[in-house]
Amino acid sequence: MTDVTQHKTETKEFRGQWIDFIYNLQDKICKALEAVDGKAKFIEDEWQRAEGKGGGGLTRVIQNSNVFEKGGVNTSVVYGRITDKLLQVLKLPFTGGIKGGSWFAAGISSVIHPFNPFVPTVHFNYRMFELYDKDGMLADRWFGGGTDLTPYYLFEEDAIHFHSTFKQTCDTVDEKLYPLFKHNCDEYFVNTHRNNERRGIGGIFYDHKRADEHQDAGFWFNLAQGCGNGFINAYIPIAEKRKNIPFTEAHKHWQEIRRGRYVEFNLIHDRGTLFGLKTGGRTESILMSLPATVRFEYNYQPAKDSEEDKLLQVCLHPKDWV
Amino acid sequence: MTDVTQHKTETKEFRGQWIDFIYNLQDKICKALEAVDGKAKFIEDEWQRAEGKGGGGLTRVIQNSNVFEKGGVNTSVVYGRITDKLLQVLKLPFTGGIKGGSWFAAGISSVIHPFNPFVPTVHFNYRMFELYDKDGMLADRWFGGGTDLTPYYLFEEDAIHFHSTFKQTCDTVDEKLYPLFKHNCDEYFVNTHRNNERRGIGGIFYDHKRADEHQDAGFWFNLAQGCGNGFINAYIPIAEKRKNIPFTEAHKHWQEIRRGRYVEFNLIHDRGTLFGLKTGGRTESILMSLPATVRFEYNYQPAKDSEEDKLLQVCLHPKDWV
Repeated sequence: MTDVTQHKTETKEFRGQWIDFIYNLQDKICKALEAVDGKAKFIEDEWQRAEGKGGGGLTRVIQNSNVFEKGGVNTSVVYGRITDKLLQVLKLPFTGGIKGGSWFAAGISSVIHPFNPFVPTVHFNYRMFELYDKDGMLADRWFGGGTDLTPYYLFEEDAIHFHSTFKQTCDTVDEKLYPLFKHNCDEYFVNTHRNNERRGIGGIFYDHKRADEHQDAGFWFNLAQGCGNGFINAYIPIAEKRKNIPFTEAHKHWQEIRRGRYVEFNLIHDRGTLFGLKTGGRTESILMSLPATVRFEYNYQPAKDSEEDKLLQVCLHPKDWV
Repeated sequence: MTDVTQHKTETKEFRGQWIDFIYNLQDKICKALEAVDGKAKFIEDEWQRAEGKGGGGLTRVIQNSNVFEKGGVNTSVVYGRITDKLLQVLKLPFTGGIKGGSWFAAGISSVIHPFNPFVPTVHFNYRMFELYDKDGMLADRWFGGGTDLTPYYLFEEDAIHFHSTFKQTCDTVDEKLYPLFKHNCDEYFVNTHRNNERRGIGGIFYDHKRADEHQDAGFWFNLAQGCGNGFINAYIPIAEKRKNIPFTEAHKHWQEIRRGRYVEFNLIHDRGTLFGLKTGGRTESILMSLPATVRFEYNYQPAKDSEEDKLLQVCLHPKDWV
């Protein structure tokens, strides 16, 4: 094999492994959520991008089940020619090397909205992006991802459990990562138009992670695998523990108010959502992230020192949970 | 009086007349809506901008009344020093003349969401913007506004009535205006991420209207007065006629699905909403535009040729109603 052939074979294998990873994770997480639910099965929609655009996705949605009011676990594997517009949106310089080249992106993305206001909403996303030059040689590759929790009522032990799981996973590869990713997460999921209220109690978030002299691409792949699989240990026990707590209309009302904030964040601020909608992604797959029933009331404020206010305060003032 | 003094007196008077107009219109429209409702009164919040920023507003909100589930009729009168950032956001050149100058903006804005799915949601907004040079001389002034209707079920006679009212008002000043403003409206209130579905059946919309050799500022002021006052004739009879039609949970369900599209438009696309939120406007006043209860379902499609589909089709393919 020539060097060029070997390089192409290796990157093709790497892509293939990443795609296997996201499909396997999608299967595993859907099964784990179906087991918690005990009734419903995810429905599946396979979609292709419009003619002339490469790739598509596998959207799996659960609605009105026992435990989950609405949720999705989606994968997409998409690619195309590099255009000026794409580089603008990605904020990358159009270097000579990648003119006439191509791009590839594959990821898994999920948002789960439970019925019971004592079970938190959860979101995760792990993705890999690659650029190729006109000869098909890899020119750039980066990773991004994260998982964050949005409770409606605060159980401190749940917050500690959730964060501990991701700290442990990150620590196995590098102890510097969790504090950094936890901070990134608190800085990212912010409703700046609401006094910097966070949408929940955070988790981990990272982006634009590239191979360098310290870490190769395999390092970031392993991290995504660890955190992606970590979802099950981080979230499922919380859902199991809280899914049968009796709740009132008042609890549901507060959940719907907070879901309003979730909608505001996703539609006003979330880069992934806006990037997807503005570059012709599949709207129904992107907006599966929105909760089923939502409430917007003028100037709604929970009573001081109520359980609702306790949650609001940790959204306004993020805490270190571990 | 010197020319300079006279100019300043005239612009001050003009500003004063505009402010009187929006306050009077706010009173008149709140009374008309309270009369339709028969029960509730608007509650009023007066607010000031943060220290060092000039002006404030008068927010009037109605919630959970007989006819109206949520609505607001807001005025604001705000001003400040001209900054680079402001001109960037307004996409205006920073000419020497207005460096060190000031700006002034005053407007009225309203969104009304009725309970009954057979009563349409309605929105209007009329605003005037002025720039002054460092000597306090008027350097620029423009007007914008519009009124649009968002039904959940289509009554063709209502659509014709609504559009006819604004056509008549526009025609009294210039017959060229209505077709242009109707087209602007159809082009503006569009969910581009939903196959260019409009949020409703439109109305009129205009922006950046300045005095020129054909029309003076008084012309645009008169138009805003005509259209602003026209709201009462355009909307109130529709609300009266439809407010007692019996409806089912299925009708309410469809209304909440469509309200989801309203939220999507306002948070993803509406320039006014995003401008307000990103330049530190009062969030609760801006987001009073969001409906009280909203529903997002994965891939929801009304049955072909149903009443719901009939509405959807005119949102996808705007019609000429007069």
